Amino acid sequence: MSSAGPLEGVEALLFDVFGTVVNWEHSITRELQAKSKGVDIDWNAFAKEWRKGYMITTRSVAAGGEGPSNVDVMHREILDRLLTETKWSAISNIWNEDEKKDLVLAWHRLSGWPDTTEGLYALKKQLLICTLSNGNVRLLADMAKNADLPWDVIFSGELLGSYKPPRNPKTYLGAAYHLTLPPNKVAMVAAHYLDLKAAASFGLKTVYVRRPTEDTVEERTGTKTKKEGGDVDVVVDSFTELAEVLPKARSLA
Amino acid sequence: MSSAGPLEGVEALLFDVFGTVVNWEHSITRELQAKSKGVDIDWNAFAKEWRKGYMITTRSVAAGGEGPSNVDVMHREILDRLLTETKWSAISNIWNEDEKKDLVLAWHRLSGWPDTTEGLYALKKQLLICTLSNGNVRLLADMAKNADLPWDVIFSGELLGSYKPPRNPKTYLGAAYHLTLPPNKVAMVAAHYLDLKAAASFGLKTVYVRRPTEDTVEERTGTKTKKEGGDVDVVVDSFTELAEVLPKARSLA
Repeated sequence: MSSAGPLEGVEALLFDVFGTVVNWEHSITRELQAKSKGVDIDWNAFAKEWRKGYMITTRSVAAGGEGPSNVDVMHREILDRLLTETKWSAISNIWNEDEKKDLVLAWHRLSGWPDTTEGLYALKKQLLICTLSNGNVRLLADMAKNADLPWDVIFSGELLGSYKPPRNPKTYLGAAYHLTLPPNKVAMVAAHYLDLKAAASFGLKTVYVRRPTEDTVEERTGTKTKKEGGDVDVVVDSFTELAEVLPKARSLA
Repeated sequence: MSSAGPLEGVEALLFDVFGTVVNWEHSITRELQAKSKGVDIDWNAFAKEWRKGYMITTRSVAAGGEGPSNVDVMHREILDRLLTETKWSAISNIWNEDEKKDLVLAWHRLSGWPDTTEGLYALKKQLLICTLSNGNVRLLADMAKNADLPWDVIFSGELLGSYKPPRNPKTYLGAAYHLTLPPNKVAMVAAHYLDLKAAASFGLKTVYVRRPTEDTVEERTGTKTKKEGGDVDVVVDSFTELAEVLPKARSLA
Protein backbone atom coordinates (compact mmCIF):
# COMPACT_ATOMS: atom_id res chain seq x y z
CA MET A 1 0.00 0.00 0.00
CA SER A 2 1.41 3.33 -1.05
CA SER A 3 1.30 6.43 1.13
CA ALA A 4 1.79 8.72 -1.86
CA GLY A 5 -0.83 11.41 -2.38
CA PRO A 6 -3.12 11.28 -5.43
CA LEU A 7 -1.22 14.22 -7.00
CA GLU A 8 2.22 12.80 -6.12
CA GLY A 9 5.00 14.97 -7.51
CA VAL A 10 2.72 17.30 -9.48
CA GLU A 11 4.55 20.54 -10.32
CA ALA A 12 1.97 22.47 -12.33
CA LEU A 13 -1.80 22.94 -12.44
CA LEU A 14 -3.61 23.67 -15.71
CA PHE A 15 -6.93 25.45 -15.20
CA ASP A 16 -9.94 25.36 -17.43
CA VAL A 17 -11.14 28.98 -17.26
CA PHE A 18 -14.76 29.46 -18.38
CA GLY A 19 -16.95 28.12 -15.60
CA THR A 20 -14.08 26.76 -13.51
CA VAL A 21 -12.27 30.06 -12.76
CA VAL A 22 -14.85 32.64 -13.78
CA ASN A 23 -18.62 32.59 -13.42
CA TRP A 24 -19.40 33.40 -17.05
CA GLU A 25 -23.13 32.71 -16.72
CA HIS A 26 -23.68 35.29 -14.00
CA SER A 27 -21.39 37.90 -15.60
CA ILE A 28 -22.83 37.68 -19.12
CA THR A 29 -26.44 37.55 -17.95
CA ARG A 30 -25.84 40.68 -15.86
CA GLU A 31 -24.22 42.53 -18.79
CA LEU A 32 -27.10 41.58 -21.10
CA GLN A 33 -29.66 42.75 -18.53
CA ALA A 34 -27.80 46.05 -18.07
CA LYS A 35 -27.93 46.59 -21.85
CA SER A 36 -31.48 45.27 -22.33
CA LYS A 37 -33.02 48.73 -22.99
CA GLY A 38 -36.15 47.57 -21.20
CA VAL A 39 -36.60 44.47 -23.36
CA ASP A 40 -37.92 41.89 -20.89
CA ILE A 41 -36.84 38.45 -22.07
CA ASP A 42 -34.99 35.55 -20.44
CA TRP A 43 -31.46 37.00 -20.73
CA ASN A 44 -30.00 34.05 -18.87
CA ALA A 45 -31.25 31.79 -21.66
CA PHE A 46 -29.69 34.16 -24.22
CA ALA A 47 -26.36 34.00 -22.34
CA LYS A 48 -26.49 30.20 -22.27
CA GLU A 49 -27.25 29.99 -25.98
CA TRP A 50 -24.35 32.34 -26.74
CA ARG A 51 -22.04 30.11 -24.72
CA LYS A 52 -23.47 26.98 -26.36
CA GLY A 53 -22.77 28.37 -29.84
CA TYR A 54 -19.19 28.96 -28.72
CA MET A 55 -18.83 25.39 -27.45
CA ILE A 56 -20.22 23.91 -30.68
CA THR A 57 -17.99 26.09 -32.86
CA THR A 58 -14.77 25.43 -30.92
CA ARG A 59 -15.44 21.69 -31.00
CA SER A 60 -16.07 21.87 -34.72
CA VAL A 61 -12.82 23.81 -35.31
CA ALA A 62 -10.96 21.38 -33.06
CA ALA A 63 -12.26 18.49 -35.16
CA GLY A 64 -10.89 20.14 -38.30
CA GLY A 65 -14.06 21.94 -39.35
CA GLU A 66 -14.52 25.49 -40.62
CA GLY A 67 -14.64 28.41 -38.20
CA PRO A 68 -12.70 31.40 -36.91
CA SER A 69 -9.74 30.74 -34.58
CA ASN A 70 -10.11 34.09 -32.78
CA VAL A 71 -12.56 33.94 -29.90
CA ASP A 72 -13.70 37.55 -30.30
CA VAL A 73 -14.55 36.96 -33.94
CA MET A 74 -16.30 33.74 -32.94
CA HIS A 75 -18.36 35.39 -30.19
CA ARG A 76 -19.39 38.11 -32.62
CA GLU A 77 -20.46 35.68 -35.34
CA ILE A 78 -22.55 33.70 -32.84
CA LEU A 79 -24.14 36.90 -31.48
CA ASP A 80 -25.07 37.95 -35.03
CA ARG A 81 -26.52 34.51 -35.69
CA LEU A 82 -28.58 34.57 -32.47
CA LEU A 83 -30.00 37.95 -33.54
CA THR A 84 -30.91 36.86 -37.06
CA GLU A 85 -31.56 33.12 -37.22
CA THR A 86 -33.29 32.30 -33.92
CA LYS A 87 -36.37 33.35 -31.98
CA TRP A 88 -34.33 36.38 -30.90
CA SER A 89 -34.43 37.77 -34.45
CA ALA A 90 -37.42 39.72 -33.11
CA ILE A 91 -34.90 41.95 -31.31
CA SER A 92 -32.32 41.95 -34.11
CA ASN A 93 -31.93 45.73 -34.04
CA ILE A 94 -31.60 46.13 -30.29
CA TRP A 95 -27.88 47.04 -30.44
CA ASN A 96 -25.91 49.19 -32.85
CA GLU A 97 -22.44 48.28 -34.14
CA ASP A 98 -20.53 49.90 -31.24
CA GLU A 99 -22.81 48.29 -28.68
CA LYS A 100 -22.30 44.87 -30.23
CA LYS A 101 -18.52 45.33 -30.22
CA ASP A 102 -18.67 46.28 -26.54
CA LEU A 103 -20.91 43.31 -25.75
CA VAL A 104 -18.41 40.88 -27.30
CA LEU A 105 -15.78 42.30 -24.94
CA ALA A 106 -18.00 41.36 -21.97
CA TRP A 107 -16.29 37.95 -22.30
CA HIS A 108 -13.04 39.74 -21.27
CA ARG A 109 -14.70 41.16 -18.15
CA LEU A 110 -15.93 37.99 -16.47
CA SER A 111 -15.82 37.80 -12.66
CA GLY A 112 -14.20 35.02 -10.69
CA TRP A 113 -16.03 32.81 -8.22
CA PRO A 114 -15.81 34.08 -4.60
CA ASP A 115 -12.86 31.76 -3.84
CA THR A 116 -11.01 32.24 -7.14
CA THR A 117 -8.50 35.02 -6.47
CA GLU A 118 -7.66 34.03 -2.89
CA GLY A 119 -7.30 30.40 -3.93
CA LEU A 120 -5.05 31.15 -6.91
CA TYR A 121 -2.67 33.28 -4.82
CA ALA A 122 -2.41 30.46 -2.24
CA LEU A 123 -1.82 27.86 -4.98
CA LYS A 124 0.75 30.04 -6.79
CA LYS A 125 2.99 29.85 -3.70
CA GLN A 126 3.05 26.06 -3.98
CA LEU A 127 3.51 25.36 -7.70
CA LEU A 128 3.03 26.71 -11.23
CA ILE A 129 -0.54 27.79 -12.04
CA CYS A 130 -1.44 28.07 -15.71
CA THR A 131 -4.55 28.47 -17.82
CA LEU A 132 -5.43 25.86 -20.41
CA SER A 133 -8.36 27.52 -22.08
CA ASN A 134 -9.92 27.89 -25.49
CA GLY A 135 -10.07 31.65 -24.90
CA ASN A 136 -7.62 33.73 -26.89
CA VAL A 137 -4.53 35.15 -25.17
CA ARG A 138 -5.70 38.77 -25.10
CA LEU A 139 -9.06 37.74 -23.66
CA LEU A 140 -7.34 35.71 -20.92
CA ALA A 141 -4.82 38.49 -20.17
CA ASP A 142 -7.54 41.16 -19.92
CA MET A 143 -9.60 38.86 -17.72
CA ALA A 144 -6.60 38.21 -15.45
CA LYS A 145 -5.96 41.94 -14.98
CA ASN A 146 -9.64 42.63 -14.39
CA ALA A 147 -10.42 39.73 -12.03
CA ASP A 148 -6.94 39.59 -10.37
CA LEU A 149 -5.87 36.13 -11.53
CA PRO A 150 -2.10 35.78 -10.95
CA TRP A 151 -1.28 33.20 -13.64
CA ASP A 152 2.29 32.02 -14.06
CA VAL A 153 1.60 31.10 -17.68
CA ILE A 154 -1.32 31.66 -20.04
CA PHE A 155 -1.75 28.70 -22.38
CA SER A 156 -4.59 28.89 -24.87
CA GLY A 157 -5.89 26.64 -27.56
CA GLU A 158 -5.05 29.25 -30.17
CA LEU A 159 -1.46 29.52 -28.93
CA LEU A 160 -0.99 25.75 -28.92
CA GLY A 161 -2.51 25.28 -32.36
CA SER A 162 -5.88 23.71 -31.55
CA TYR A 163 -8.90 23.96 -29.32
CA LYS A 164 -9.24 21.71 -26.29
CA PRO A 165 -11.74 18.98 -27.01
CA PRO A 166 -11.79 15.39 -25.95
CA ARG A 167 -8.58 13.64 -26.96
CA ASN A 168 -6.64 16.47 -28.56
CA PRO A 169 -2.95 16.00 -27.72
CA LYS A 170 -1.89 19.45 -28.97
CA THR A 171 -3.45 21.17 -25.97
CA TYR A 172 -2.91 18.86 -22.95
CA LEU A 173 0.46 17.46 -24.00
CA GLY A 174 1.54 20.74 -25.60
CA ALA A 175 1.22 22.52 -22.26
CA ALA A 176 3.16 19.74 -20.48
CA TYR A 177 5.88 19.93 -23.14
CA HIS A 178 6.33 23.70 -22.72
CA LEU A 179 6.55 23.21 -18.96
CA THR A 180 9.25 20.56 -19.51
CA LEU A 181 7.18 18.11 -17.44
CA PRO A 182 5.99 14.56 -18.06
CA PRO A 183 2.16 14.37 -18.18
CA ASN A 184 1.87 12.75 -14.74
CA LYS A 185 3.56 15.78 -13.12
CA VAL A 186 0.77 18.02 -14.41
CA ALA A 187 -2.82 18.17 -13.14
CA MET A 188 -5.83 19.50 -15.05
CA VAL A 189 -8.29 21.47 -12.88
CA ALA A 190 -11.83 21.77 -14.27
CA ALA A 191 -15.50 21.97 -13.39
CA HIS A 192 -16.19 19.77 -16.41
CA TYR A 193 -15.90 16.01 -16.12
CA LEU A 194 -15.31 15.51 -19.86
CA ASP A 195 -12.34 17.89 -19.82
CA LEU A 196 -10.77 15.77 -17.06
CA LYS A 197 -11.51 12.49 -18.86
CA ALA A 198 -9.67 13.81 -21.92
CA ALA A 199 -6.74 15.06 -19.81
CA ALA A 200 -6.50 11.70 -18.00
CA SER A 201 -6.43 9.84 -21.31
CA PHE A 202 -3.04 11.51 -21.95
CA GLY A 203 -1.73 10.69 -18.49
CA LEU A 204 -2.41 13.98 -16.71
CA LYS A 205 -3.68 14.00 -13.13
CA THR A 206 -7.16 15.42 -12.52
CA VAL A 207 -8.88 17.79 -10.07
CA TYR A 208 -12.66 18.19 -10.27
CA VAL A 209 -14.09 21.45 -8.89
CA ARG A 210 -17.83 21.41 -8.20
CA ARG A 211 -19.31 24.71 -9.50
CA PRO A 212 -23.06 25.15 -8.95
CA THR A 213 -23.91 26.12 -12.55
CA GLU A 214 -21.42 23.92 -14.45
CA ASP A 215 -21.88 20.30 -15.59
CA THR A 216 -25.10 18.39 -14.89
CA VAL A 217 -26.32 17.60 -11.39
CA GLU A 218 -25.47 13.95 -12.10
CA GLU A 219 -21.89 14.87 -13.03
CA ARG A 220 -21.48 17.18 -10.04
CA THR A 221 -22.70 14.63 -7.52
CA GLY A 222 -21.48 11.53 -9.35
CA THR A 223 -17.84 12.51 -9.92
CA LYS A 224 -15.77 10.71 -7.29
CA THR A 225 -12.11 10.21 -6.54
CA LYS A 226 -10.42 6.90 -7.32
CA LYS A 227 -10.24 6.27 -3.59
CA GLU A 228 -14.04 6.55 -3.46
CA GLY A 229 -14.46 4.27 -6.48
CA GLY A 230 -14.59 7.04 -9.11
CA ASP A 231 -12.01 8.04 -11.72
CA VAL A 232 -10.61 11.47 -10.87
CA ASP A 233 -7.72 12.15 -8.50
CA VAL A 234 -9.13 14.95 -6.32
CA VAL A 235 -12.59 16.52 -5.86
CA VAL A 236 -13.01 19.95 -4.20
CA ASP A 237 -15.62 22.67 -3.86
CA SER A 238 -13.28 25.66 -4.19
CA PHE A 239 -9.75 26.76 -5.05
CA THR A 240 -9.13 27.66 -1.40
CA GLU A 241 -10.00 24.08 -0.44
CA LEU A 242 -7.63 22.86 -3.16
CA ALA A 243 -4.84 25.04 -1.72
CA GLU A 244 -5.41 23.43 1.67
CA VAL A 245 -5.42 19.81 0.54
CA LEU A 246 -2.65 20.20 -2.06
CA PRO A 247 0.44 19.72 0.15
CA LYS A 248 -0.78 16.31 1.31
CA ALA A 249 -2.10 15.38 -2.14
CA ARG A 250 1.31 16.13 -3.71
CA SER A 251 3.29 14.23 -1.09
CA LEU A 252 5.65 11.51 -2.31
CA ALA A 253 5.45 7.86 -1.36
CA MET B 1 3.36 69.12 -36.39
CA SER B 2 1.90 66.34 -34.27
CA SER B 3 1.75 66.44 -30.49
CA ALA B 4 1.35 62.66 -30.30
CA GLY B 5 3.89 60.78 -28.17
CA PRO B 6 6.39 58.43 -29.82
CA LEU B 7 4.46 55.41 -28.44
CA GLU B 8 1.04 56.81 -29.36
CA GLY B 9 -1.73 54.34 -28.56
CA VAL B 10 0.60 51.49 -27.59
CA GLU B 11 -1.31 48.89 -25.50
CA ALA B 12 1.35 46.24 -24.88
CA LEU B 13 5.10 46.01 -24.28
CA LEU B 14 7.10 42.97 -25.39
CA PHE B 15 10.31 42.51 -23.40
CA ASP B 16 13.46 40.83 -24.51
CA VAL B 17 14.51 38.96 -21.35
CA PHE B 18 18.18 37.89 -21.32
CA GLY B 19 20.22 41.04 -20.71
CA THR B 20 17.24 43.41 -20.85
CA VAL B 21 15.26 42.09 -17.85
CA VAL B 22 17.82 39.89 -16.10
CA ASN B 23 21.55 40.35 -15.67
CA TRP B 24 22.53 36.91 -16.97
CA GLU B 25 26.27 37.69 -17.09
CA HIS B 26 26.53 38.51 -13.40
CA SER B 27 24.24 35.64 -12.30
CA ILE B 28 25.92 32.91 -14.35
CA THR B 29 29.46 34.06 -13.53
CA ARG B 30 28.57 34.02 -9.83
CA GLU B 31 27.10 30.49 -10.05
CA LEU B 32 30.16 29.21 -11.90
CA GLN B 33 32.48 30.77 -9.32
CA ALA B 34 30.45 29.22 -6.49
CA LYS B 35 30.82 25.80 -8.14
CA SER B 36 34.46 26.27 -9.22
CA LYS B 37 35.88 23.83 -6.62
CA GLY B 38 38.91 26.08 -6.35
CA VAL B 39 39.65 26.04 -10.09
CA ASP B 40 40.91 29.57 -10.72
CA ILE B 41 40.06 30.49 -14.31
CA ASP B 42 38.22 33.41 -15.93
CA TRP B 43 34.67 32.23 -15.17
CA ASN B 44 33.20 35.37 -16.67
CA ALA B 45 34.77 34.38 -20.00
CA PHE B 46 33.27 30.88 -19.60
CA ALA B 47 29.83 32.41 -18.93
CA LYS B 48 30.12 34.62 -22.01
CA GLU B 49 31.12 31.69 -24.20
CA TRP B 50 28.19 29.65 -22.91
CA ARG B 51 25.84 32.50 -23.80
CA LYS B 52 27.52 32.95 -27.18
CA GLY B 53 26.99 29.28 -28.03
CA TYR B 54 23.32 29.74 -27.19
CA MET B 55 23.04 32.80 -29.46
CA ILE B 56 24.71 31.00 -32.37
CA THR B 57 22.53 27.89 -31.96
CA THR B 58 19.23 29.77 -31.66
CA ARG B 59 20.06 31.83 -34.74
CA SER B 60 20.93 28.68 -36.63
CA VAL B 61 17.66 26.99 -35.59
CA ALA B 62 15.73 30.15 -36.49
CA ALA B 63 17.30 30.09 -39.94
CA GLY B 64 16.10 26.53 -40.43
CA GLY B 65 19.26 24.75 -39.31
CA GLU B 66 19.65 21.73 -37.08
CA GLY B 67 19.48 22.06 -33.31
CA PRO B 68 17.32 21.40 -30.24
CA SER B 69 14.25 23.60 -29.70
CA ASN B 70 14.34 23.21 -25.91
CA VAL B 71 16.60 25.74 -24.24
CA ASP B 72 17.62 23.42 -21.39
CA VAL B 73 18.75 20.78 -23.86
CA MET B 74 20.55 23.47 -25.83
CA HIS B 75 22.34 24.88 -22.76
CA ARG B 76 23.43 21.37 -21.80
CA GLU B 77 24.79 20.54 -25.26
CA ILE B 78 26.78 23.78 -25.33
CA LEU B 79 28.12 23.16 -21.82
CA ASP B 80 29.26 19.67 -22.86
CA ARG B 81 30.91 21.11 -25.96
CA LEU B 82 32.73 23.80 -23.94
CA LEU B 83 34.06 21.07 -21.65
CA THR B 84 35.28 18.79 -24.46
CA GLU B 85 36.09 20.78 -27.59
CA THR B 86 37.61 24.04 -26.28
CA LYS B 87 40.48 25.15 -24.10
CA TRP B 88 38.26 24.25 -21.14
CA SER B 89 38.56 20.55 -21.95
CA ALA B 90 41.36 20.68 -19.37
CA ILE B 91 38.61 20.83 -16.73
CA SER B 92 36.24 18.42 -18.49
CA ASN B 93 35.68 16.33 -15.35
CA ILE B 94 35.09 19.20 -12.93
CA TRP B 95 31.34 18.45 -12.57
CA ASN B 96 29.46 15.17 -12.28
CA GLU B 97 26.12 14.52 -14.01
CA ASP B 98 23.95 15.92 -11.21
CA GLU B 99 26.12 19.02 -10.93
CA LYS B 100 25.87 19.65 -14.68
CA LYS B 101 22.06 19.28 -14.56
CA ASP B 102 21.93 21.78 -11.72
CA LEU B 103 24.23 24.18 -13.55
CA VAL B 104 21.96 24.19 -16.62
CA LEU B 105 19.11 25.26 -14.33
CA ALA B 106 21.15 28.31 -13.29
CA TRP B 107 19.62 29.91 -16.40
CA HIS B 108 16.24 29.65 -14.60
CA ARG B 109 17.62 31.46 -11.54
CA LEU B 110 18.87 34.68 -13.12
CA SER B 111 18.49 37.92 -11.15
CA GLY B 112 16.83 41.07 -12.45
CA TRP B 113 18.59 44.43 -12.75
CA PRO B 114 18.06 46.69 -9.68
CA ASP B 115 15.15 48.52 -11.39
CA THR B 116 13.52 45.45 -12.97
CA THR B 117 10.85 44.34 -10.50
CA GLU B 118 9.80 47.82 -9.36
CA GLY B 119 9.66 49.00 -12.96
CA LEU B 120 7.60 46.04 -14.18
CA TYR B 121 5.00 46.48 -11.42
CA ALA B 122 4.66 50.17 -12.32
CA LEU B 123 4.37 49.36 -16.03
CA LYS B 124 1.84 46.56 -15.45
CA LYS B 125 -0.57 49.13 -14.02
CA GLN B 126 -0.48 51.03 -17.30
CA LEU B 127 -0.64 48.35 -20.00
CA LEU B 128 0.04 44.69 -20.84
CA ILE B 129 3.60 43.55 -20.15
CA CYS B 130 4.77 40.40 -21.93
CA THR B 131 8.00 38.56 -22.55
CA LEU B 132 9.16 37.94 -26.11
CA SER B 133 12.14 35.73 -25.47
CA ASN B 134 13.93 32.76 -26.96
CA GLY B 135 13.89 31.13 -23.52
CA ASN B 136 11.50 28.21 -23.10
CA VAL B 137 8.24 28.72 -21.20
CA ARG B 138 9.26 26.77 -18.09
CA LEU B 139 12.55 28.67 -17.89
CA LEU B 140 10.72 32.00 -18.14
CA ALA B 141 8.04 30.95 -15.61
CA ASP B 142 10.62 29.76 -13.07
CA MET B 143 12.62 32.95 -13.57
CA ALA B 144 9.49 35.07 -13.06
CA LYS B 145 8.66 33.34 -9.77
CA ASN B 146 12.27 33.57 -8.59
CA ALA B 147 12.98 37.18 -9.60
CA ASP B 148 9.40 38.49 -9.03
CA LEU B 149 8.56 39.44 -12.62
CA PRO B 150 4.77 39.97 -12.84
CA TRP B 151 4.24 39.19 -16.54
CA ASP B 152 0.76 39.39 -18.02
CA VAL B 153 1.75 36.95 -20.77
CA ILE B 154 4.82 34.80 -21.42
CA PHE B 155 5.53 34.57 -25.14
CA SER B 156 8.52 32.51 -26.17
CA GLY B 157 10.10 31.62 -29.44
CA GLU B 158 9.33 27.97 -28.83
CA LEU B 159 5.67 28.70 -28.17
CA LEU B 160 5.34 30.84 -31.30
CA GLY B 161 7.11 28.32 -33.48
CA SER B 162 10.47 29.99 -34.10
CA TYR B 163 13.32 31.80 -32.42
CA LYS B 164 13.53 35.58 -32.55
CA PRO B 165 16.18 36.60 -35.02
CA PRO B 166 16.29 39.54 -37.36
CA ARG B 167 13.24 39.59 -39.63
CA ASN B 168 11.32 36.58 -38.34
CA PRO B 169 7.60 37.40 -38.53
CA LYS B 170 6.49 34.39 -36.46
CA THR B 171 7.75 35.94 -33.24
CA TYR B 172 7.11 39.71 -33.48
CA LEU B 173 3.87 39.51 -35.47
CA GLY B 174 2.78 36.31 -33.74
CA ALA B 175 2.80 38.06 -30.37
CA ALA B 176 0.84 41.02 -31.80
CA TYR B 177 -1.68 38.62 -33.33
CA HIS B 178 -2.31 36.81 -30.04
CA LEU B 179 -2.77 40.19 -28.32
CA THR B 180 -5.33 41.12 -31.02
CA LEU B 181 -3.32 44.29 -31.71
CA PRO B 182 -1.95 45.85 -34.91
CA PRO B 183 1.89 45.98 -34.85
CA ASN B 184 2.00 49.74 -34.22
CA LYS B 185 0.09 49.31 -30.94
CA VAL B 186 2.87 47.08 -29.62
CA ALA B 187 6.35 48.17 -28.52
CA MET B 188 9.43 45.96 -28.28
CA VAL B 189 11.65 46.72 -25.26
CA ALA B 190 15.26 45.54 -25.55
CA ALA B 191 18.87 46.29 -24.62
CA HIS B 192 19.86 45.05 -28.09
CA TYR B 193 19.70 47.41 -31.03
CA LEU B 194 19.39 44.60 -33.60
CA ASP B 195 16.32 43.18 -31.84
CA LEU B 196 14.65 46.60 -32.14
CA LYS B 197 15.64 47.00 -35.78
CA ALA B 198 13.97 43.66 -36.56
CA ALA B 199 10.84 44.58 -34.56
CA ALA B 200 10.61 47.97 -36.31
CA SER B 201 10.84 46.29 -39.72
CA PHE B 202 7.45 44.70 -38.95
CA GLY B 203 5.92 47.97 -37.77
CA LEU B 204 6.34 47.59 -34.01
CA LYS B 205 7.37 50.59 -31.89
CA THR B 206 10.74 50.40 -30.12
CA VAL B 207 12.19 51.14 -26.67
CA TYR B 208 15.96 50.90 -26.18
CA VAL B 209 17.14 50.22 -22.62
CA ARG B 210 20.83 50.95 -22.00
CA ARG B 211 22.26 48.08 -19.90
CA PRO B 212 25.94 48.40 -18.95
CA THR B 213 27.03 44.93 -20.12
CA GLU B 214 24.76 44.51 -23.18
CA ASP B 215 25.44 45.65 -26.77
CA THR B 216 28.67 47.41 -27.71
CA VAL B 217 29.68 50.79 -26.31
CA GLU B 218 29.03 52.26 -29.77
CA GLU B 219 25.49 50.82 -29.79
CA ARG B 220 24.78 51.97 -26.25
CA THR B 221 25.92 55.53 -26.84
CA GLY B 222 24.95 55.74 -30.51
CA THR B 223 21.33 54.58 -30.29
CA LYS B 224 19.14 57.70 -30.43
CA THR B 225 15.45 58.47 -30.70
CA LYS B 226 13.97 59.62 -33.99
CA LYS B 227 13.55 63.06 -32.43
CA GLU B 228 17.33 63.12 -31.85
CA GLY B 229 18.04 61.96 -35.39
CA GLY B 230 18.22 58.23 -34.56
CA ASP B 231 15.81 55.41 -35.40
CA VAL B 232 14.22 54.12 -32.20
CA ASP B 233 11.14 55.58 -30.51
CA VAL B 234 12.26 55.85 -26.88
CA VAL B 235 15.63 55.46 -25.07
CA VAL B 236 15.80 54.92 -21.29
CA ASP B 237 18.28 53.74 -18.67
CA SER B 238 15.84 51.67 -16.58
CA PHE B 239 12.32 50.22 -16.42
CA THR B 240 11.43 52.70 -13.66
CA GLU B 241 12.36 55.55 -16.00
CA LEU B 242 10.23 53.91 -18.71
CA ALA B 243 7.26 53.75 -16.31
CA GLU B 244 7.67 57.49 -15.67
CA VAL B 245 7.90 58.61 -19.30
CA LEU B 246 5.31 56.14 -20.63
CA PRO B 247 2.10 58.12 -20.00
CA LYS B 248 3.37 61.06 -22.08
CA ALA B 249 4.96 58.79 -24.69
CA ARG B 250 1.63 56.94 -25.20
CA SER B 251 -0.45 60.12 -25.44
CA LEU B 252 -2.58 60.56 -28.54
CA ALA B 253 -2.28 63.48 -30.98
